[in-house]
Amino acid sequence: MTASDERFMARALELARAVPRPSPNPRVGAVLVRDGAIVAEAAHEGPGRPHAERTALDGIDATGCTLYVTLEPCSHQGRTPPCAPAVVEAGIRRVVAPFEDPDVRVQGRGFEMLRASGVEVSVGVLASEARALNSAWAHQRRTGRARVTLKLALSLDGRLAATDGSARWITGAAARAHVHTRRAEADGIVVGAGTVASDDPQLTARVSTDVHQPARVIVDSVGRTSSRARVFAVGAQVIVATTHRCSHETQTAWKETGAEVVALPSGPGGVDLSALVAELSRRDWLEIYCEGGARLASSLLRERVVDRLELYYGPVVLGDSGPGIGGLGIDSMDQASRFTLVETRRFEDDVLVILERGGR
Amino acid sequence: MTASDERFMARALELARAVPRPSPNPRVGAVLVRDGAIVAEAAHEGPGRPHAERTALDGIDATGCTLYVTLEPCSHQGRTPPCAPAVVEAGIRRVVAPFEDPDVRVQGRGFEMLRASGVEVSVGVLASEARALNSAWAHQRRTGRARVTLKLALSLDGRLAATDGSARWITGAAARAHVHTRRAEADGIVVGAGTVASDDPQLTARVSTDVHQPARVIVDSVGRTSSRARVFAVGAQVIVATTHRCSHETQTAWKETGAEVVALPSGPGGVDLSALVAELSRRDWLEIYCEGGARLASSLLRERVVDRLELYYGPVVLGDSGPGIGGLGIDSMDQASRFTLVETRRFEDDVLVILERGGR
Repeated sequence: MTASDERFMARALELARAVPRPSPNPRVGAVLVRDGAIVAEAAHEGPGRPHAERTALDGIDATGCTLYVTLEPCSHQGRTPPCAPAVVEAGIRRVVAPFEDPDVRVQGRGFEMLRASGVEVSVGVLASEARALNSAWAHQRRTGRARVTLKLALSLDGRLAATDGSARWITGAAARAHVHTRRAEADGIVVGAGTVASDDPQLTARVSTDVHQPARVIVDSVGRTSSRARVFAVGAQVIVATTHRCSHETQTAWKETGAEVVALPSGPGGVDLSALVAELSRRDWLEIYCEGGARLASSLLRERVVDRLELYYGPVVLGDSGPGIGGLGIDSMDQASRFTLVETRRFEDDVLVILERGGR
Repeated sequence: MTASDERFMARALELARAVPRPSPNPRVGAVLVRDGAIVAEAAHEGPGRPHAERTALDGIDATGCTLYVTLEPCSHQGRTPPCAPAVVEAGIRRVVAPFEDPDVRVQGRGFEMLRASGVEVSVGVLASEARALNSAWAHQRRTGRARVTLKLALSLDGRLAATDGSARWITGAAARAHVHTRRAEADGIVVGAGTVASDDPQLTARVSTDVHQPARVIVDSVGRTSSRARVFAVGAQVIVATTHRCSHETQTAWKETGAEVVALPSGPGGVDLSALVAELSRRDWLEIYCEGGARLASSLLRERVVDRLELYYGPVVLGDSGPGIGGLGIDSMDQASRFTLVETRRFEDDVLVILERGGR
């Protein structure tokens, strides 16, 4: 592993990062290098489109080149033919990759295929950066379920709003802009009926570039949500997750706006949230981005379906009269499940703290 | 300003940082350089001891040297004679410093004196690092009052303990060790009577080196604290801040342990906390390190005497049944005073967020 290996892998990661959202596929970038110079580069654009290394190899005499690719070249027939044989045929001398593809259909078989054909393989360059780039995808491949991310904007003492309900604005403009970036990366945004009733949000990803709008999911077990709410008026998919306690008339009114209505079992706090995650995972989603309000957030935590916390702390202390996370049934410290700290980021005077459930 | 200026100033800061606690004086380091090599170095050890630049110059022919010093050389007679004339007499060619001393008796007069005598002066090298090193001292010089730091260990949702009162341990070993380092830097540790009653803490700075133990201050308006509490048994100064509501007998029992008893006016939550800060500031304290519990923390915030927050977030969510910050009389977002984010630090899975009141 050399400094130039890191430099070319960093470029491949940069290419991968620039693709808006290849979901349900991972972000992948590829760089072809001969004599220390880049001769071709590409990124994977999404389902059905060629893999990054195929595009980079296209129309190039790559004999003797080194291929830098942010994911192990695949060894199986998927929506597109396998890449490892194509890399061998192209006469590539060496392949540099960050880690093994956790997909059970690959898991080192691509590297094996390359090595068996005499291609030198170096694994481990910028592994943690490459893992971070596709962490939701890797979660989905490992567990078979979409990653459930709970995003909250909190005061320093954990309040979601002041006594009068005003949450505008606990966090500043830079943190709020980052939330829109995260929305654009997710497959769907989930909110509770209370948030729709009180804020009437559009729930769109407002970013400077033209992006795929994530689906909007409203969790409403009894049918409180008006079909005239703004969320129904904006294009892009709307899903209402409800239970048999919601009237047929309300469900019909929702459907008439073009929304999809999904009837799910009842859980302890309304809609069974594990059933909701299973339903959305069945649609090949990689990431479910949950935004509250307080009641939905508390239910997600109480039912322990949260995989990742993205908490934005604004620089205020509000005291105990505003809404916060409700009762979670935790009486003593040893009953609390511990998260693992992934990262902290700073946005003006706000701090984003990212944690994940389970070990590192 | 050159790269070697930064290197020598970094060394001077390192020397300053190594002194345990020169309070009420600032931490100051000095490095003498000739032809790119260090010929002498020193740090200021505390009140009555010579200033860093005096020690560095002692017994050395410093003619033509450059002096790197982390604070402007003083121009006035204090407990020791002024340094700027001594620097001139020693034949120093150039002085490098990070910023002007904010002390009203200096404020650029030291630099003026040097320049008037033909010494070249460069100001601004590693200014933010040098400011951070003496931020409590600078606060005291600017405001005439000790800096009030409120330290709390919180769950991610702002709880100070679980329902059963168990706060052991919200944060991990590394964060708790850092708290002991901070105790050793402070002039005094302040806790409420509730914390003494429930935890019976020693309130000592338990660090690997032999350090000055800060004073321990117990805020107890009515006299709940037993004179047999462990805090009275350990050496080092104990101060009990109380009001006329505390019986003479209780005050006498405290005094018999060797503790000092200070009777202060009553405030909205017990002892008037502004009066307490004024009383401790009168003793030349630079930093008052307040550790809770919940009631004292809420009073400090409600009475707006907190200058700095040092919040350690542990990686758990506890829900609303455990104690947190109480009512602060804030009904809407615009009533909340906003802090400025200074720094975030990571300790294992815990995050320390440091904020200060007022602008940057």
